[in-house]
Amino acid sequence: MKTVKEISDFVGGVIKGNPLEQINKIGSLEQAAKGTLAYAEDKYIDQVISSRASCVFVPDGEFPGRTVVIVEQPRVAFARIAQWMFPPERPFQGVHKTAIIDKKAKLSKDVAVGAWTCIEAGAHIGSGTILFPGCYIGSNCRIGANCVIYPHSVLYPNVEIGDRVIVHAGVVLGADGFGFVSDGNRQIKLPQMGRILIDSDVEIGANSCVDRGTFDETMISEGVKIDNLCQIAHNVHIGCHTLIASQSGIAGSSRIGNHVTIGGQVGIGDHCRIDDSALLGAQCGVPSRKRLPTKEVYWGTPARLLKDVRVQQAYVGRLPKIVEELKRLREELDKLTQRNDSKTST
Amino acid sequence: MKTVKEISDFVGGVIKGNPLEQINKIGSLEQAAKGTLAYAEDKYIDQVISSRASCVFVPDGEFPGRTVVIVEQPRVAFARIAQWMFPPERPFQGVHKTAIIDKKAKLSKDVAVGAWTCIEAGAHIGSGTILFPGCYIGSNCRIGANCVIYPHSVLYPNVEIGDRVIVHAGVVLGADGFGFVSDGNRQIKLPQMGRILIDSDVEIGANSCVDRGTFDETMISEGVKIDNLCQIAHNVHIGCHTLIASQSGIAGSSRIGNHVTIGGQVGIGDHCRIDDSALLGAQCGVPSRKRLPTKEVYWGTPARLLKDVRVQQAYVGRLPKIVEELKRLREELDKLTQRNDSKTST
Amino acid sequence: MKTVKEISDFVGGVIKGNPLEQINKIGSLEQAAKGTLAYAEDKYIDQVISSRASCVFVPDGEFPGRTVVIVEQPRVAFARIAQWMFPPERPFQGVHKTAIIDKKAKLSKDVAVGAWTCIEAGAHIGSGTILFPGCYIGSNCRIGANCVIYPHSVLYPNVEIGDRVIVHAGVVLGADGFGFVSDGNRQIKLPQMGRILIDSDVEIGANSCVDRGTFDETMISEGVKIDNLCQIAHNVHIGCHTLIASQSGIAGSSRIGNHVTIGGQVGIGDHCRIDDSALLGAQCGVPSRKRLPTKEVYWGTPARLLKDVRVQQAYVGRLPKIVEELKRLREELDKLTQRNDSKTST
Repeated sequence: MKTVKEISDFVGGVIKGNPLEQINKIGSLEQAAKGTLAYAEDKYIDQVISSRASCVFVPDGEFPGRTVVIVEQPRVAFARIAQWMFPPERPFQGVHKTAIIDKKAKLSKDVAVGAWTCIEAGAHIGSGTILFPGCYIGSNCRIGANCVIYPHSVLYPNVEIGDRVIVHAGVVLGADGFGFVSDGNRQIKLPQMGRILIDSDVEIGANSCVDRGTFDETMISEGVKIDNLCQIAHNVHIGCHTLIASQSGIAGSSRIGNHVTIGGQVGIGDHCRIDDSALLGAQCGVPSRKRLPTKEVYWGTPARLLKDVRVQQAYVGRLPKIVEELKRLREELDKLTQRNDSKTST
Repeated sequence: MKTVKEISDFVGGVIKGNPLEQINKIGSLEQAAKGTLAYAEDKYIDQVISSRASCVFVPDGEFPGRTVVIVEQPRVAFARIAQWMFPPERPFQGVHKTAIIDKKAKLSKDVAVGAWTCIEAGAHIGSGTILFPGCYIGSNCRIGANCVIYPHSVLYPNVEIGDRVIVHAGVVLGADGFGFVSDGNRQIKLPQMGRILIDSDVEIGANSCVDRGTFDETMISEGVKIDNLCQIAHNVHIGCHTLIASQSGIAGSSRIGNHVTIGGQVGIGDHCRIDDSALLGAQCGVPSRKRLPTKEVYWGTPARLLKDVRVQQAYVGRLPKIVEELKRLREELDKLTQRNDSKTST
Repeated sequence: MKTVKEISDFVGGVIKGNPLEQINKIGSLEQAAKGTLAYAEDKYIDQVISSRASCVFVPDGEFPGRTVVIVEQPRVAFARIAQWMFPPERPFQGVHKTAIIDKKAKLSKDVAVGAWTCIEAGAHIGSGTILFPGCYIGSNCRIGANCVIYPHSVLYPNVEIGDRVIVHAGVVLGADGFGFVSDGNRQIKLPQMGRILIDSDVEIGANSCVDRGTFDETMISEGVKIDNLCQIAHNVHIGCHTLIASQSGIAGSSRIGNHVTIGGQVGIGDHCRIDDSALLGAQCGVPSRKRLPTKEVYWGTPARLLKDVRVQQAYVGRLPKIVEELKRLREELDKLTQRNDSKTST
């Protein structure tokens, strides 16, 4: 429970209305009830007056009879308050008696380890990190401070994770990359001997997979957010603060820049290079070894500039008219030719 | 072991042949052996005579020397018999000694809990439900009666499940939705505080993920069947008896109607609305905020009416002929122009 | 640690340089250090001289001052050496005290079973096989010799696996196929009663799913390699040595030949037939019941011969020019018609 005053102070806002209003939950403008903090931007500003929220973050404006807090970026401020008021739960403390911690593993203070979680030799777990029940932490893994590893995550050996990383249930980090060499008859497995480096503030969604490097490392930089059921192959490097939506896959050795946005079900071939701040629309496909320059929006398979795709789609949409016009031209030309021929023949 | 008479009575059919024939398995017409019940519809009717099945469900016809049961919908009747004769196995009873049930969790009668399954505080498990080994049931989850939760499923807190729901191995219900707010520099996580409501008779395939709602709920209605490796994002609502084939994904806040059929690897953007009984062909992609009207068949990315896609494909297929015709027109026109010019100049 | 002599003898190569050079790791040509064995083919041959590798496998050539081994297929020889020098680790021996092995399960000699792994009645585990912590092996499963089953894999009952099979973390083998029969109102589940046969030398990537057959079996032949997050539906048969890249899915009852290569995110509909040595490009989609003949390269949705797709793409790319030419023809024709008309009228 916070007052509007406390909340406004936290985000550096300006209150219009009742600073003593009590806030005990956050929610959307439409479904807000008494005690709810909401936010409004753009077209939703009009709904502030009719909302039942006890306080609304807004960019500016007058809302007679309502309590609002003026902040520059209402949505950002709202997210900050949400994080502040509702930090991730830590439902248990200490090491569960059924957990198996190898003698050569090292746990910093305030590490919580759930039932049936196994931490192998040489692993280090940073302070304040929580490992839910049923996780497997392979030998020589290093997990930083204040991480949350949800149930049934599997870390193969030699995975390194920074601070405040969130790994959702069922994630597999460090399985072998898909590396085989054909002798013309059979596939020979190329041992995958590299590791994974995951920097701080990364979040990895449920059942996603990140493969270890072949010789070197697969790298996921600071602040990257990966949704559920994504595949990051061996030797891939992902730059800072990049977003990867659900069911996308990045094949071996590709390099993804900083602040890239990758939509859902996107496929990026091997050895690609996606430059900073590029945006890849859902389901697009980037062929192997392709480079996509910075800051542009791409779509389609093979992925091209969205504007070019749109132009091409428009051209394709004109095909019925093109065919009609062709037919008319043919008729008119034939008629004209006939007239000419008849003239000439006369 | 059942007699043909018992089986026919169960589905209200009419026997032609031997009512005392013994049935102990079900199978396909081609691979049936003595004791097998099979079914035949449409073009497969011709195979009834040569099949080795001991009994075949058919819609009508004469099959001298064979034992058949006439029923209106042979395939449906067959599925009913299959369910009746081969109910899901319950390989164990009671609560395994290694399971950890919080004192504040509540188990109804005849609940079976496998080894190393954890049920957190406030969870309720309905009567007759079986939880296989290694499941994690978060706090305040509610699971109805006669559900089957296969090994290693993970339910985050506050997931609510109806009766007779089947959750396959590796499913993750209730992970955080992919909700981040960019402050221009970093992604700020928007706490995901909603829940999941799954109604009765739903089945969820192996390693699929359903995210919790942001503030409100993600909802899966009665009778929905979801295949393996699917992704259902935060705040999605899915109507009754909808089918979702493998590897499909539905992004945040989309509304899917009743009796919708979604093929494999389909992607549905956020805030879409797919109306009742629509059919989405495999791999199609529905752009964000798009609405697809009821009862039609859609395909392609962006998804459009299948018939329109087919027409467009045909037009595109005609491009070589279009180019040829253009070339001919050009030649003829040039020739004609030349003749005209030469006439004029003469 | 091996000498170049030992390594060369193992692959039947010819040494140029120092046979006593010590090799203790393998790596890429660029990042090699002292003690590294690397390989070079094609355009990378030029980098041999400048590499810091202690030994390089090459197809031929002169590299003064460097130690190389001449072998016919450097990459294949390299993979063989890698497997020989770095066999999969066996981090533990014996059966962990927390594992639960049913009395009616049978373990051959030298089987290693990790903590909290459950082996149900009637299961057989072949000699030398290692089951990591947290695996679930259903009743009557048969696992051959020298397999590696990584943490948290789930095998439903009646899954049969050959020798030297590698199953990565989170894999689910034998969940129910997606088989429902609609009675016009509800979906009736068709019990999935078949099994899975996986032959020797197969590898299955993390979080992939293979469903059991409906009545008969789902079959994966010798040497098949399946990447992460793939879906193999009920009754599918996959031929020998076929490769399936990440996030691909094969729907029910399809038949995939030998030595087929399937790119990432490919979707193959039900009842398809993909003939031997076909190559399916990433993200392509094969419609239900389609057959793709042997040895060709396919791409796109619907999948067609890559060369035809390329030709069509080129035609579509010419649309702006087609439209321009149409416009010019129209103008010229109109002008010509006008001239003709005016002549005629005069």
